[in-house]
Amino acid sequence: MNPAGILTRLADTLEARKTADPQTSYVARLHAKGLDAILKKVAEEAAETLMAAKDGIPEKVIHETADLWFHTLVLLAHSGIRPEAVLAELARREGVSGIEEKATRKEGA
Amino acid sequence: MNPAGILTRLADTLEARKTADPQTSYVARLHAKGLDAILKKVAEEAAETLMAAKDGIPEKVIHETADLWFHTLVLLAHSGIRPEAVLAELARREGVSGIEEKATRKEGA
Amino acid sequence: MNPAGILTRLADTLEARKTADPQTSYVARLHAKGLDAILKKVAEEAAETLMAAKDGIPEKVIHETADLWFHTLVLLAHSGIRPEAVLAELARREGVSGIEEKATRKEGA
Amino acid sequence: MNPAGILTRLADTLEARKTADPQTSYVARLHAKGLDAILKKVAEEAAETLMAAKDGIPEKVIHETADLWFHTLVLLAHSGIRPEAVLAELARREGVSGIEEKATRKEGA
Repeated sequence: MNPAGILTRLADTLEARKTADPQTSYVARLHAKGLDAILKKVAEEAAETLMAAKDGIPEKVIHETADLWFHTLVLLAHSGIRPEAVLAELARREGVSGIEEKATRKEGA
Repeated sequence: MNPAGILTRLADTLEARKTADPQTSYVARLHAKGLDAILKKVAEEAAETLMAAKDGIPEKVIHETADLWFHTLVLLAHSGIRPEAVLAELARREGVSGIEEKATRKEGA
Repeated sequence: MNPAGILTRLADTLEARKTADPQTSYVARLHAKGLDAILKKVAEEAAETLMAAKDGIPEKVIHETADLWFHTLVLLAHSGIRPEAVLAELARREGVSGIEEKATRKEGA
Repeated sequence: MNPAGILTRLADTLEARKTADPQTSYVARLHAKGLDAILKKVAEEAAETLMAAKDGIPEKVIHETADLWFHTLVLLAHSGIRPEAVLAELARREGVSGIEEKATRKEGA
């Protein structure tokens, strides 16, 4: 297993689920229900990540963060966006200067 | 640039920010404010991802998803968790059977 | 029907549901599942309120805001708090000075 | 002070803030920034309500729920909706049958 490549492999799988049978696939079912159902799951998993962090149990934080990332990947697939585009955006901001630039930008908002 | 390694490199940087000067670093400032401030940002970026998706503008979805992943990485660093642990959890669920197992587990909830 | 008294009447009903049979009452079921299940619903309804507002359909905004307030009332009942305490806090901030005091307080955060 | 009437009085004040000077009023500033800024605050206050509930401190739950209701009232004012419409929707669902009907409706979703 190569952890680094999992996002790309998952994106391929989630993309393929767009045309799978909703009867047999959870992700195909989410795609079929549409954008709002996917966004509801993203919000729900974000809330569960918050609660896991408040509980201070690392295993739960890992589990809920995985659920959150998983459902943002479903959202990306639904929107026709590759996760590599998000990783490239993160890389663009990389390094001290990039992160500080972000700080300046965001805290004025 | 190697997109695949960005999460690992970012995690190293965010880890180092834990002991940086809050006066000069946005992330050091978040670490200093504590868990609730970080979780508030995670919730805020999740909401902005929802709004970007509703607007249907791919550039905004990429940008807000990057912000969301970035702040979950700050949360992981704050909690002493490596993103590789989250990627490993995603890999564990990989493949048809893994994703379907998740479907069974979640929809009964 | 007296709209002004509905929050008080609902609070009474939700309070009584704490000891009702989870088999026959949705709210009793939420109480039985515990705090995290209730908070998950609050987060979910907040997300649905966002989506309804982005859709710009007043009927949906009314419906989802009602769902959000309803589940915050369940949270209050679960926490042993009366909605009158929240209304009193809102009244305390009432008027120009109160709202402006809030502005000063919040935007520095 | 009449707690029961506070939502109506607040709605009047928030409505009037739509045409107030953004320089001097927090709510006028939110209205001027537009829907997304208001929704971001609703999401943020929902998250803070979750965190207060996880902390189990009643005063914080009251305070954050007041913040959440306050910002949903700003959203309603921005959308041209009176809180009485939300209270009427809650009243419509009132009583055992109403709440159980909701249970049936929601858990199938």
